[in-house]
Amino acid sequence: MTSSIGDSIHLSLFGESHGPAIGVVIDGLAAGIPLDLDQLQAQMEKRRAKGRLSTARQEGDQVEIQSGFFQGHTTGSPLCLLIRNQQQHSRDYEATKTLLRPSHADFTAFEKYGGFQDYRGGGHFSGRITAPLVAAGAVMLQILAAKGIRVGTHIARCAGVDDRPFPSGEPQLTQAIAALDQAPFPVLDREQGDAMAAAIEAARLEGDSVGGVLETAVTGLPTGVGEPFFHSVESVLASLLFSVPAVKGVEFGLGFAMSDLRGSQANDPFQMDGGRIRTATNHNGGINGGITNGMPLLVRTAVKPTPSIYKPQQTVDYARRENATLVIQGRHDPAIIHRARVVVDSVVAFGLCDLCCRRFGTLWQLEGFPRAFDRGPDLGV
Amino acid sequence: MTSSIGDSIHLSLFGESHGPAIGVVIDGLAAGIPLDLDQLQAQMEKRRAKGRLSTARQEGDQVEIQSGFFQGHTTGSPLCLLIRNQQQHSRDYEATKTLLRPSHADFTAFEKYGGFQDYRGGGHFSGRITAPLVAAGAVMLQILAAKGIRVGTHIARCAGVDDRPFPSGEPQLTQAIAALDQAPFPVLDREQGDAMAAAIEAARLEGDSVGGVLETAVTGLPTGVGEPFFHSVESVLASLLFSVPAVKGVEFGLGFAMSDLRGSQANDPFQMDGGRIRTATNHNGGINGGITNGMPLLVRTAVKPTPSIYKPQQTVDYARRENATLVIQGRHDPAIIHRARVVVDSVVAFGLCDLCCRRFGTLWQLEGFPRAFDRGPDLGV
Amino acid sequence: MTSSIGDSIHLSLFGESHGPAIGVVIDGLAAGIPLDLDQLQAQMEKRRAKGRLSTARQEGDQVEIQSGFFQGHTTGSPLCLLIRNQQQHSRDYEATKTLLRPSHADFTAFEKYGGFQDYRGGGHFSGRITAPLVAAGAVMLQILAAKGIRVGTHIARCAGVDDRPFPSGEPQLTQAIAALDQAPFPVLDREQGDAMAAAIEAARLEGDSVGGVLETAVTGLPTGVGEPFFHSVESVLASLLFSVPAVKGVEFGLGFAMSDLRGSQANDPFQMDGGRIRTATNHNGGINGGITNGMPLLVRTAVKPTPSIYKPQQTVDYARRENATLVIQGRHDPAIIHRARVVVDSVVAFGLCDLCCRRFGTLWQLEGFPRAFDRGPDLGV
Amino acid sequence: MTSSIGDSIHLSLFGESHGPAIGVVIDGLAAGIPLDLDQLQAQMEKRRAKGRLSTARQEGDQVEIQSGFFQGHTTGSPLCLLIRNQQQHSRDYEATKTLLRPSHADFTAFEKYGGFQDYRGGGHFSGRITAPLVAAGAVMLQILAAKGIRVGTHIARCAGVDDRPFPSGEPQLTQAIAALDQAPFPVLDREQGDAMAAAIEAARLEGDSVGGVLETAVTGLPTGVGEPFFHSVESVLASLLFSVPAVKGVEFGLGFAMSDLRGSQANDPFQMDGGRIRTATNHNGGINGGITNGMPLLVRTAVKPTPSIYKPQQTVDYARRENATLVIQGRHDPAIIHRARVVVDSVVAFGLCDLCCRRFGTLWQLEGFPRAFDRGPDLGV
Repeated sequence: MTSSIGDSIHLSLFGESHGPAIGVVIDGLAAGIPLDLDQLQAQMEKRRAKGRLSTARQEGDQVEIQSGFFQGHTTGSPLCLLIRNQQQHSRDYEATKTLLRPSHADFTAFEKYGGFQDYRGGGHFSGRITAPLVAAGAVMLQILAAKGIRVGTHIARCAGVDDRPFPSGEPQLTQAIAALDQAPFPVLDREQGDAMAAAIEAARLEGDSVGGVLETAVTGLPTGVGEPFFHSVESVLASLLFSVPAVKGVEFGLGFAMSDLRGSQANDPFQMDGGRIRTATNHNGGINGGITNGMPLLVRTAVKPTPSIYKPQQTVDYARRENATLVIQGRHDPAIIHRARVVVDSVVAFGLCDLCCRRFGTLWQLEGFPRAFDRGPDLGV
Repeated sequence: MTSSIGDSIHLSLFGESHGPAIGVVIDGLAAGIPLDLDQLQAQMEKRRAKGRLSTARQEGDQVEIQSGFFQGHTTGSPLCLLIRNQQQHSRDYEATKTLLRPSHADFTAFEKYGGFQDYRGGGHFSGRITAPLVAAGAVMLQILAAKGIRVGTHIARCAGVDDRPFPSGEPQLTQAIAALDQAPFPVLDREQGDAMAAAIEAARLEGDSVGGVLETAVTGLPTGVGEPFFHSVESVLASLLFSVPAVKGVEFGLGFAMSDLRGSQANDPFQMDGGRIRTATNHNGGINGGITNGMPLLVRTAVKPTPSIYKPQQTVDYARRENATLVIQGRHDPAIIHRARVVVDSVVAFGLCDLCCRRFGTLWQLEGFPRAFDRGPDLGV
Repeated sequence: MTSSIGDSIHLSLFGESHGPAIGVVIDGLAAGIPLDLDQLQAQMEKRRAKGRLSTARQEGDQVEIQSGFFQGHTTGSPLCLLIRNQQQHSRDYEATKTLLRPSHADFTAFEKYGGFQDYRGGGHFSGRITAPLVAAGAVMLQILAAKGIRVGTHIARCAGVDDRPFPSGEPQLTQAIAALDQAPFPVLDREQGDAMAAAIEAARLEGDSVGGVLETAVTGLPTGVGEPFFHSVESVLASLLFSVPAVKGVEFGLGFAMSDLRGSQANDPFQMDGGRIRTATNHNGGINGGITNGMPLLVRTAVKPTPSIYKPQQTVDYARRENATLVIQGRHDPAIIHRARVVVDSVVAFGLCDLCCRRFGTLWQLEGFPRAFDRGPDLGV
Repeated sequence: MTSSIGDSIHLSLFGESHGPAIGVVIDGLAAGIPLDLDQLQAQMEKRRAKGRLSTARQEGDQVEIQSGFFQGHTTGSPLCLLIRNQQQHSRDYEATKTLLRPSHADFTAFEKYGGFQDYRGGGHFSGRITAPLVAAGAVMLQILAAKGIRVGTHIARCAGVDDRPFPSGEPQLTQAIAALDQAPFPVLDREQGDAMAAAIEAARLEGDSVGGVLETAVTGLPTGVGEPFFHSVESVLASLLFSVPAVKGVEFGLGFAMSDLRGSQANDPFQMDGGRIRTATNHNGGINGGITNGMPLLVRTAVKPTPSIYKPQQTVDYARRENATLVIQGRHDPAIIHRARVVVDSVVAFGLCDLCCRRFGTLWQLEGFPRAFDRGPDLGV
């Protein structure tokens, strides 16, 4: 398998940037989940390129459900979500198809697929393939929300500018997550966000690009989710996060900074908190031994600067085996960090749903949703 | 599945710190690999606790092969490697079994397993369970070495002290890896290593512990290994690295630092290098689009300080639901970073073998080994 | 996972009888396979209902490739094959939706999915979902054919009428497979086929249905394919064959009849045959210890009579919990055995491709295909 | 993977007939299952060779638990069950190691493993490897029994002699299963059993062997277990049954006989039965659309005659590539059908547990067991 993942819930991703359509098959959903399709489409909007900070390629990204959905609910059969490609400018790629774009997958795709890959727009390696990930994630986020589990991501750092950190109190954190959900540029501190936007714009004007760090919090998770060793929460989420193009680092809780502390500083002391066992600090990011401890889950994701820049770059012509200079054409983002946050939310939500189903069974998916009695007494179910 | 992993090669890990034995079943090995059992045992030695920097618990860690090995070669059937536990001091854990050790898996194990977990020494969550991982890794490292693929790890940082970075030239890097293999305390700069050891000793005297960062390099990898999205090299290796107890962060190439660069700084320009296509820099750590590009693979792993410290800690008695003070008994390491490096080498080697088999097939495992003609002409094979 | 299968090559099936579309994602194909789309569509034709022996529902079953195919070859990315539903008469099912059709999945779907299943036309349980299986199988059959591996199925028995058995000689068998490929009603003995058709017609006139036994042969398989125990050739193929609706029995070689023989009668003696080791008889159907021995693979599949009959049937109204009489409306086949053969060919081909890839690696898929040099010297590949 | 299977519960089988030990790792068990080790050992006894009808090789088959079990309960970590080999007569195999035993895996093992396989006693292909399957099955049968789910197998046919069929009433069937559990030679009709035993003895005296058909019934299964298509109950159970050495056919309900009926004869009419929906007949063997319908599950398994016979056999010397005559030495069974029944019970139980966990979650395993309060109030759990 390559573009397939998951145990209890299984994703099979397909599509290329300039092919007819992209999409995902989600296998393992319970029957009876009342999907909110408007909310699903709203998630797609968050990923879409908009404004000066983004590429000029504008796709509608309308999700068409092909199967697994009937009378407003999931059917229990595989849910196929399809998104048609519309705005391809394939000719942009013809002239330079053997000029390897640095930090892109052009070279490795040639080596792996021998020239048979769809090279247009990066093919299956395109960031565009994150659109079906977001569609799948929208389903997962609805499942989690029904249980009071909230996932939110802010731009913790971009182009050298830091956002304010997440609040440490859980109610405040949940509130911050709700606010981020509506924000077009997801930061906690509006002024810092403006400084980031200015830095992105400066890079754009120079034909350059910037990266950043996304920080994700999850509140409301039950304890006991995740498995020791290979299916630890960290293993599962990191595996998914590193599948997102441009991600080069993942850390949980204090992460790399934790390795500089002493045990007496790093350990999270347990304490009684109104009948609940909680930790006084949360340096471990809500995970001990690979398993959720009921504290907010915290994970940070490093996103490298967009590889597509307009500055001339030294490279190689793969066919001629000669050094060459590349000037990238096409429409490209000076930053993807603000668009990537919904992708990060999506894969985190998927990983957590998969792990929760493993622990609590497929029928856990239905918890928190109102049972549907509106389908007529003749069904009696 | 919980403690099982792998596609082409499959690991099934078992055992608890104070049970009869720990071990691993490796399914998917080709027949005819001439395993060097001395080398395997030498790897076990590297993981073993030794000297003042480590716990006083001394285990022989003799690997007993139960199956899959016959007349000096793998048989193609599952290889079961068993290690008996010998030095358990189980009574150390009786008195405090409901006192949750901070930053350990005690609380999450109670929540997940309802008190049925083997609480002695951390049970299945114990760092001791990395011993079979090292045994499996020793097999993988031999398979990789036969193809000229070398894996090595140094302590890049410990207790605030930095080691010298890996050399950037590939021949020098391969040489550095070879030197690390023999080093009892794996650093590139001996003086910095002494400073780290001094800092660990200082922590030990205070009943405290330290963490650090491991940096791993792999040379000799072919191009085209890894799959887009969910089985990218980064996804597979991160998933394995985060399954190692105490790991809280993983980054490839420049990692988090890359997110502060502009695209024009971060991109690795391609250039012809004597007929081969290589990159001038290696900020992406040998991976583009989740697939190896033939440059050295570079990954850094953050290890948190050992949670077991001798200082009194605030915690909770799980049974009485009361705040309590914990003073940990038993034998514990003030640092595990120097022992963890062989675990990191092992899981990286496993992940790469699994991905190479996926790409090149199971019989790839046999490449580079001398064919065995010494079993008699009567077999004729 | 539910509707997903495969290790080296992975299928994810989706769709419901009366939804917008049905299809399959095939993940794990090598890049560079020159798919013959006409042949693919010809396979779809074989599965389609035609003539008096079949349902009056007529679907075009045009396969639309959404991804993974570019310039006449597979790209190495997931291949998504989509088939739009066109001829749904959904109203046929409204009146009787809570009347459980005997031997169908109506009752079990209600119990499992709580009424949220798409009940129209059997939903995901419909025989219609075998159409994407056939599309996937067409790809697999092309991969096998390039290596000289041929798969063919005849109706060994239908409505009490037996076809002539497969010839035992391998060249004759390969010839018989080629003849079957073109036959609209796949039998070896034309007269026996006519007798079967007459029996089907007789059942149709009585509003009844018939079943039968399909026998499949595969020639040209290499030795050593399949794994001991859980991924034996028999395990993998049986698992796939039993996933085809209406299949109730699977046997390899002599199968059930073998259990009546003595060892001295049943054993297949080995003998030298012009430098090759072969067996004098083939009672084991080409498989020893779960692994191919180079002899033709033989498997027989029992297909129950189509459950949809026009005779009134006693049943239960699921909603009212009352006994009831059901008179099935809609368009139904008096026999599916002649349409099922291409489904059987397809899943057998998929299982063998998956096992061969596991043994020989993904790049095995390209063996036997002409390398494509027609994409221009500028690519140089 | 080769000798690994399962989704929610995962088995990893290891061992060779003449190696140090054989065993299995079971990953995915819930914590807190009070395993009855005497019952587990009693299952091992049923598989052991005894009396004139069986081989003279006598193994104690004592199961040693290496991990995953503590204070009388499963811990939730992988359960490793180990059985030491003791009675190997490895010299029996030296002289004839390149003489291929007909209908055994000798030839295919040579072709697949190139002579590196452990050829002694069939190595990993030996029927002896079913011992850990039985150990794993004993755990599964205890889990099922706690929910009132009973699994039982009788010899439906052996050496041409038929046993009485299973009773059709469910209470009578459950009673028959209970009686079979205690029977040394598992038949429903004692006289028919005597006739079978006489036929086996007759074959033994001639140095020959016999096969047979096992019929398995399961009562007490909930509805809704199993998944459409690739993880149908039939697919999962057939895959497991065909992994048992010597199995050549599997059929559910009426199986092959069903293909001779008309739809009006074969369909199982639904009817109300005291508030429950049941079928009047059970031709489908308790499965519709791959999913349990609450009726008894019925499956029949064809076992070929033991390939090891004492009569001289024509064969080939693999090394010399010459025709040869083989006279098998060693200790062999004239029939294995009576020993195979507990293997069949075991794999059926495993498959059903795995499917039930997929549907109801891992914690389903604990249903029906008394909660353990005997571990002291200090744990409070």
